[in-house]
Amino acid sequence: MNVLLNGRSRHFRTVEFDGRRNAVRLIEQRLLPHCFKIVAARDHQATAAAIRDMVVRGAPAIAATAAYGLAQGANEFRGRDRARFERHVSAVFATLQQARPTAVDPVNAMREVLGQMRTGGTVREQQDIAMRAAQAFADRSVAECEAIGRHGAVLIREGMRVLTHCNAGWLACVDIGTATAPLYAAQAAGRQFHVFCDETRPRCQGASLTAWELAQQGIPHDIIADNAAGHLMQRGEIDLVITGSDRVLGRTGEVANKIGTYTKAVLAHRHGIPFYVAIPLSTIDWELVRGFDIPIEERDEAEVLGAWGVAWAPARSRRQRITRPVRVRIANPTSRARNPGFDVTPADLVTGIITPLGILKPGELWTHRQRLGAPA
Amino acid sequence: MNVLLNGRSRHFRTVEFDGRRNAVRLIEQRLLPHCFKIVAARDHQATAAAIRDMVVRGAPAIAATAAYGLAQGANEFRGRDRARFERHVSAVFATLQQARPTAVDPVNAMREVLGQMRTGGTVREQQDIAMRAAQAFADRSVAECEAIGRHGAVLIREGMRVLTHCNAGWLACVDIGTATAPLYAAQAAGRQFHVFCDETRPRCQGASLTAWELAQQGIPHDIIADNAAGHLMQRGEIDLVITGSDRVLGRTGEVANKIGTYTKAVLAHRHGIPFYVAIPLSTIDWELVRGFDIPIEERDEAEVLGAWGVAWAPARSRRQRITRPVRVRIANPTSRARNPGFDVTPADLVTGIITPLGILKPGELWTHRQRLGAPA
Repeated sequence: MNVLLNGRSRHFRTVEFDGRRNAVRLIEQRLLPHCFKIVAARDHQATAAAIRDMVVRGAPAIAATAAYGLAQGANEFRGRDRARFERHVSAVFATLQQARPTAVDPVNAMREVLGQMRTGGTVREQQDIAMRAAQAFADRSVAECEAIGRHGAVLIREGMRVLTHCNAGWLACVDIGTATAPLYAAQAAGRQFHVFCDETRPRCQGASLTAWELAQQGIPHDIIADNAAGHLMQRGEIDLVITGSDRVLGRTGEVANKIGTYTKAVLAHRHGIPFYVAIPLSTIDWELVRGFDIPIEERDEAEVLGAWGVAWAPARSRRQRITRPVRVRIANPTSRARNPGFDVTPADLVTGIITPLGILKPGELWTHRQRLGAPA
Repeated sequence: MNVLLNGRSRHFRTVEFDGRRNAVRLIEQRLLPHCFKIVAARDHQATAAAIRDMVVRGAPAIAATAAYGLAQGANEFRGRDRARFERHVSAVFATLQQARPTAVDPVNAMREVLGQMRTGGTVREQQDIAMRAAQAFADRSVAECEAIGRHGAVLIREGMRVLTHCNAGWLACVDIGTATAPLYAAQAAGRQFHVFCDETRPRCQGASLTAWELAQQGIPHDIIADNAAGHLMQRGEIDLVITGSDRVLGRTGEVANKIGTYTKAVLAHRHGIPFYVAIPLSTIDWELVRGFDIPIEERDEAEVLGAWGVAWAPARSRRQRITRPVRVRIANPTSRARNPGFDVTPADLVTGIITPLGILKPGELWTHRQRLGAPA
């Protein structure tokens, strides 16, 4: 999507491949929203480090990064010996996999690249195929988000006020995003609307990343404390909720997503406000039977006890002087915190699931499982 | 309540009067939870400044501070001329009133002191009466909180997990607090229980003040992000909710309180968890007919866009090195925020109102209005 640089709007993807330099170019997301910077990972080890160190985050984004990283690593090989080449590629695969060992998307992406490479004869052929396969993976990821946008945009009518939670935007994908895709598509269709971004404590991805995305794109929005959505719904100031998801159960339609999503779904249900979840197909879990069994990661208590940002300068202008971000401790120093990272929203609170193949009711996922790519 | 100083527990009130020095002694609340300090306001102008500059906050606390400030100001007068004394006292009243012009509690408290002064003959007599009246006002405020604790403590059974929102603790009162009073009373009765403190963005009074209070008192607790309460309720980890209130409508039982209270009430209702509101009688508004008409203050957006705390030191020990608190900007620098400060919870979500005269259903306030002190 677009980024405003010196008053001009330029298009970027979250991850791109520079074929001439055999480099993976990434938005340095750890500096956002305070500073926009592109970094180049010049070999596959650097690409693995970027995944490990959270330069890039979000399942679709790290999947494409790993796919590019595998092609990059393959290109680093000099020579024609296929056996040595295969050992080299296996080592590259392992390095990239170990960069984020719990994530399944990078492994699936690299397996796809690897599968296509096997159709090539010479080392050189396989290197070329790897490049094209990684590029195709990234392009298909973007096309999926475009399809989510196409289907979801019809939900956003003129003048609507839309609530979002956390960041399921283009920064978490290769481009466009999932929960944000309908917003960008509605904007492209010329519709006017307003977005409320839940700040999404404790890591504040809504206040920092989603708000940054919307600002770059010129979409009117306000950040709100997570506490404020209920009040705004009560006063009739919110018409629609769209969030992303980390895992949707294909059998039940239950939605695991960033902590606080369940609360917003309960509030939306009370106020008769439609609650939609936008996902790529890879987010559907076809195996698990009960949402209660989704493991809820308990994250570092430091996230709750503190906050992260740049030193506050009195806001003479809306442009903030950029300084090095620091962490401050908000909480009582002798207290501890609980920090569940995710929650599970039952299907009866979800109006619809926006997929690249159309909008489905949560209970319809299982009916349409073949079309949606469930394993036979 | 108690404060741990160098490993020893000492008792403090939020505001006290030092008769020998004619000084009002206050806990400097702007430094909490990072630093505990008592400041002395040595004349009534300094007391007014402490109210204005938020050294002391919370309706019952500033009411008692203003009552003491009026007595302090009266004591500053030298001479026997009653007409000049009355003009002097009027000026003191005006100075203290203007320190927080929208608050009604300080005015009511000072009127009470003033009314009793009129029973005195000489200037000296009136000065003595003012002192005793201010002291009686503060003591009665404490007794009210004690009564709230006595009635509310029965709700807290052995092993319960209690959720609180914001700070309606002793720091907001003269002592003991309102929402915290049942906790302290249950602790005094030897019961074991656990408290979850909503951090209460944007100002984080839960993470800073309530957590500090509970830590000083040795009550087991965890801070949670405001987003986490719904998940904990869903998993059966919360048994009871107690909050304070800024205004309860006597006619309808609707509850205005810190933003996010309504959300917690909706969640508690969904999960069948009792939701109680603890208040002194002065919090009941006997005039307003509809909760929707309660003005909801839209506060400075900077509260949402940033956070306030001390520089984070890697937590080798649980004791945090105290440095000067700073404000950081969390949010995207080119985004703005909405910041409603309060919300209104309908009576059907409120299990009971804990008053100094006992626990009532919200609909019973009007029935018992005479006993509760409604104007005839």
